[in-house]
Amino acid sequence: MKRIAVLSSGGDAPGMNAAIRAVVRKAISEGMEVYGVNHGYAGLVAGDIFPISSRDVGDKISRGGTFLYSARYPEFAQLEGQLAGIEQLKKNNIEGVVVIGGDGSYHGAMRLTEHGFPAVGVPGTIDNDIAGTDFTIGFDTAVNTAVEAIDKLRDTSSSHGRTFVVEVMGRNAGDIALWAGISSGADQIIVPEEGFDIKQVAETIENDFKKQGKNHHIIVLAEGVMSGAEFAEKLKAAGDKSDLRVTNLGHILRGGSPTARDRVLASRLGAHAVKLLKEGRGGLAVGIHNEELVESPILGTAEEGALFTLAEDGKIIVNNPHKARLDFAKLNRSLSR
Amino acid sequence: MKRIAVLSSGGDAPGMNAAIRAVVRKAISEGMEVYGVNHGYAGLVAGDIFPISSRDVGDKISRGGTFLYSARYPEFAQLEGQLAGIEQLKKNNIEGVVVIGGDGSYHGAMRLTEHGFPAVGVPGTIDNDIAGTDFTIGFDTAVNTAVEAIDKLRDTSSSHGRTFVVEVMGRNAGDIALWAGISSGADQIIVPEEGFDIKQVAETIENDFKKQGKNHHIIVLAEGVMSGAEFAEKLKAAGDKSDLRVTNLGHILRGGSPTARDRVLASRLGAHAVKLLKEGRGGLAVGIHNEELVESPILGTAEEGALFTLAEDGKIIVNNPHKARLDFAKLNRSLSR
Amino acid sequence: MKRIAVLSSGGDAPGMNAAIRAVVRKAISEGMEVYGVNHGYAGLVAGDIFPISSRDVGDKISRGGTFLYSARYPEFAQLEGQLAGIEQLKKNNIEGVVVIGGDGSYHGAMRLTEHGFPAVGVPGTIDNDIAGTDFTIGFDTAVNTAVEAIDKLRDTSSSHGRTFVVEVMGRNAGDIALWAGISSGADQIIVPEEGFDIKQVAETIENDFKKQGKNHHIIVLAEGVMSGAEFAEKLKAAGDKSDLRVTNLGHILRGGSPTARDRVLASRLGAHAVKLLKEGRGGLAVGIHNEELVESPILGTAEEGALFTLAEDGKIIVNNPHKARLDFAKLNRSLSR
Amino acid sequence: MKRIAVLSSGGDAPGMNAAIRAVVRKAISEGMEVYGVNHGYAGLVAGDIFPISSRDVGDKISRGGTFLYSARYPEFAQLEGQLAGIEQLKKNNIEGVVVIGGDGSYHGAMRLTEHGFPAVGVPGTIDNDIAGTDFTIGFDTAVNTAVEAIDKLRDTSSSHGRTFVVEVMGRNAGDIALWAGISSGADQIIVPEEGFDIKQVAETIENDFKKQGKNHHIIVLAEGVMSGAEFAEKLKAAGDKSDLRVTNLGHILRGGSPTARDRVLASRLGAHAVKLLKEGRGGLAVGIHNEELVESPILGTAEEGALFTLAEDGKIIVNNPHKARLDFAKLNRSLSR
Repeated sequence: MKRIAVLSSGGDAPGMNAAIRAVVRKAISEGMEVYGVNHGYAGLVAGDIFPISSRDVGDKISRGGTFLYSARYPEFAQLEGQLAGIEQLKKNNIEGVVVIGGDGSYHGAMRLTEHGFPAVGVPGTIDNDIAGTDFTIGFDTAVNTAVEAIDKLRDTSSSHGRTFVVEVMGRNAGDIALWAGISSGADQIIVPEEGFDIKQVAETIENDFKKQGKNHHIIVLAEGVMSGAEFAEKLKAAGDKSDLRVTNLGHILRGGSPTARDRVLASRLGAHAVKLLKEGRGGLAVGIHNEELVESPILGTAEEGALFTLAEDGKIIVNNPHKARLDFAKLNRSLSR
Repeated sequence: MKRIAVLSSGGDAPGMNAAIRAVVRKAISEGMEVYGVNHGYAGLVAGDIFPISSRDVGDKISRGGTFLYSARYPEFAQLEGQLAGIEQLKKNNIEGVVVIGGDGSYHGAMRLTEHGFPAVGVPGTIDNDIAGTDFTIGFDTAVNTAVEAIDKLRDTSSSHGRTFVVEVMGRNAGDIALWAGISSGADQIIVPEEGFDIKQVAETIENDFKKQGKNHHIIVLAEGVMSGAEFAEKLKAAGDKSDLRVTNLGHILRGGSPTARDRVLASRLGAHAVKLLKEGRGGLAVGIHNEELVESPILGTAEEGALFTLAEDGKIIVNNPHKARLDFAKLNRSLSR
Repeated sequence: MKRIAVLSSGGDAPGMNAAIRAVVRKAISEGMEVYGVNHGYAGLVAGDIFPISSRDVGDKISRGGTFLYSARYPEFAQLEGQLAGIEQLKKNNIEGVVVIGGDGSYHGAMRLTEHGFPAVGVPGTIDNDIAGTDFTIGFDTAVNTAVEAIDKLRDTSSSHGRTFVVEVMGRNAGDIALWAGISSGADQIIVPEEGFDIKQVAETIENDFKKQGKNHHIIVLAEGVMSGAEFAEKLKAAGDKSDLRVTNLGHILRGGSPTARDRVLASRLGAHAVKLLKEGRGGLAVGIHNEELVESPILGTAEEGALFTLAEDGKIIVNNPHKARLDFAKLNRSLSR
Repeated sequence: MKRIAVLSSGGDAPGMNAAIRAVVRKAISEGMEVYGVNHGYAGLVAGDIFPISSRDVGDKISRGGTFLYSARYPEFAQLEGQLAGIEQLKKNNIEGVVVIGGDGSYHGAMRLTEHGFPAVGVPGTIDNDIAGTDFTIGFDTAVNTAVEAIDKLRDTSSSHGRTFVVEVMGRNAGDIALWAGISSGADQIIVPEEGFDIKQVAETIENDFKKQGKNHHIIVLAEGVMSGAEFAEKLKAAGDKSDLRVTNLGHILRGGSPTARDRVLASRLGAHAVKLLKEGRGGLAVGIHNEELVESPILGTAEEGALFTLAEDGKIIVNNPHKARLDFAKLNRSLSR
């Protein structure tokens, strides 16, 4: 393989730039040329493609976001979109592609591979909700950003004896809430993977202030459960009498300079994706498992270790989906009083 | 004066702990004893009063919030509340009081002084909306926290070509929005002290993306104008077609370790308040003007340089209210394209 | 077991407070009482021991350092010291001990266990050089602190076209240098576990500036190799002509609020140590392996999975010593040009 | 004036990029064209000059360092160098120049003006040692970086009961040491503008540990006094018995994303410089005094308000040199025990 392309797709995450840099530098060190594609699959179809040099990715490892821009582009699920993209690859003599993004972007990588252009997926999302890897690029940064914010909220929470409901991102996954909750010494963590009893949440607040002598109460709420505003309403309806505030940390979790761990992870995964392409292998997603690099077929049977299986009705089955660590929720309950 | 007390009142702000430390250490270095009062005027009335040593404030200069807790306590506006507080001061042989907080807390300081207990106000609020000082304790930290958050939002805003409306605190004042807006290179700043034309805001967004070639658009909105959600709705109604997101930075601006400038300001103002008390002077609020320490009578006529004048109908007139720097808004318009 | 004690020993590390908090809260949740010991084994011998409540560790999870203080106390290697310590444990009816610190402190834990007081070691050191765990408490924070510092150095390095030799802590281990080096996009990483050719280091600098078109050059040097000043001298002797600066990041790596990962790790390990003590098990050190909690005998044979074996001559053999990831050094070489 | 150039000179400082951005954007908004000069006066002489657009400075406000690079270039003090620079200005039809840097770079600005090319100096240095402005660009950031580092050192200092001598930059000025010292609650601050008695420094350490009950001791030392290593040696010779460590914060103070205050200052000063050039005025340095923009003649008599006067012997007299705030040193002494 002489020339590859790299693009970022789906929601952006800190460390995507570090991954792009790793793809570019590793490929160049292996004697390949690298092209960048702006705006994900949309840019691929539109031909927004250009050569990237080693210098172009200088100083990018520390930058949040993705300098190749990202976009969601559902049209790439259609054959027409795929063929248009392949046309562009041919025009630029590109033989393989690295796709950095969430699992939505993996399907495009699979299709490109099937059309004869090996493509490898690299898991980049703050949500940590992708099968085939213990951690996704951006997760560690998002957790640390959340913890810094909650540390600040605790200052003001303590000063005024208030309860704070802190909503954090994570789509359907509670990972950010669990890690950030333990790290910030949250009094309660509410995640979609685990049920909760709003009456008991309210009672715990009351008990903490009255019997435990606490001067603040912080509830970390994963967005996958419901919004902070809705949760607060239910809490009041369930009898909470505390001085309650709601804060949605929102999009700040998606930005910022990546942590060391995310930079290392992005560097390793990006380089590994290039290694696979060099061997002519595509249709794979890279990941980290027990601190070591792994790769999995994107599509296939569970026996083949594939991340996704196509059911007969065309629906996608996720094999071994990433699971939230509910032992953390339990641990937190024993450490928060 | 042999013994003084210190309390924090109203909304908390980073640097309040640094101010308390300065009051305690300065008073001790002047041969006085210091008592702390928990929970502001409420704690004063309830007798939640205790001696503080120099060691007790060790390591406090870098902490956000206020370890004396804060509270709003409108009952102290009534004579009954004041007399109850004075009873406690007498019981503890306290002769003077330092009150750290917003201008709401200054009135209590005035009343204590009138009752024979000299009290001095120290301006502590993130909003920078207090007369008698160029800057309030906590403002610089809140601005820097906002800027760090907006820097992160810019990462994700740029990656996706989005518009962000970022709501920041400040009550009726636009100071945080103006300083944070310039510092973060905001594309538009909307403050209550200045009108705005929602049609023009929408046109500026469109123009920036289409003609200026920008890949993000950030609007910093002071909460005194309206909520971010309401603003976004109006923006859409005015024809905005961009991919719009709203983020309310919320209470994180009130917390966090204070910046160097806030620590220096708090240290200076706290020490200056003690100096005034030592001279037996009360009914004053300290401040900084052109980098030098100043003090102003809390209540009196404008000619006397007082911060507030009581009108005949009992209403309070603010003399020389703090003014937002609208030249910053103008400057930003010339720097943001 | 009804009552346990906790102490920190050896060099301090961010996250020690989080571990102490976890020990205290977990033990209380299990119905035990907890005593704190100040100044490590020195305080144990001196009887600087006091009860700790759940509230005492409130707000400690985010604090750097250790509020129980730490100290090196070689006297505890002697029987006399150990007996004096046991005397104090008896006096306070303490039945088990958690020791947070480097592997130096494990030996004391072993001795206490042999004397009938089960003790468990928790790995706390920034150096990541302890057998029996993939990561030590404090390592992730130290790496991130180093990366933030090197990011700043890169700003000024780029502005002036300079070479920086950045010395980082780590005792005999290159872990901090390797992780921080990759994360900061260092141009060269020099660690004790790998040889280096000073001539080649100098040539790489020259080549990077002249042929690669780089405008800065950053060398991350582990203190275990030699000091930055000495390295710079050798570099100049080897013909380096670049504008060279040396910076020793020094002790700032030991402080600061712990990262999320260190807080989670400390919380898990602290709680796990309590669980072992509750089962009456001592002479063990806890750790994390492949993200799961593990424990190892401190002393014994390699077959027993012990961390250390006593040779016949009394010398200590480290079984399966922690190894630096030299694959990171290799990876970095392919990503830095 | 239709076309101006901008360059950075001397030691780099955080906020220089924000100043360059302000110059570019303000000039464009005033209908002028802007050219950038790389590597300061050296690049001017070498013709390393290129047009800059508004987009080129997008996202630069938050970056440390200077993307135009900086250099010291004493050759520009000679007529030959100046004429070569002017040749380049002519070739590019550039009519005026903004020079961002320390006072060393002001002299070049003066010479360019004398040759018919109005030039304006903008004070950019972390040292805060320039006449004609209350604060220089980069000072606030450097102080905050120092405070964050010292906060970390305090963690480990407290854990081990150690004394730390922390050396900070500032050339001959004690400003960084004074502001960082007060902000970090330093136990002693040593600056070149004030004498010190090493015996008394040692006694204060002993007294603080023994009588004041302190568990750490931090001395902030300005580099203008002597190096930290030398100071520590003298301290030991003067009888200090404490567990002493030395840390030199070094070049990290020169880097990093600028604080809000530095960004605002840089934005205002950069825009003001352009305003002056537009009026055809040169030979001036801009500054901030009492929060308002000011400008001063670079060369002239003290009566004219000039920053520098040429004495008959050709030596430069600094009129109203910037003075360190020794009242801060006094304040700190009353707050540190």
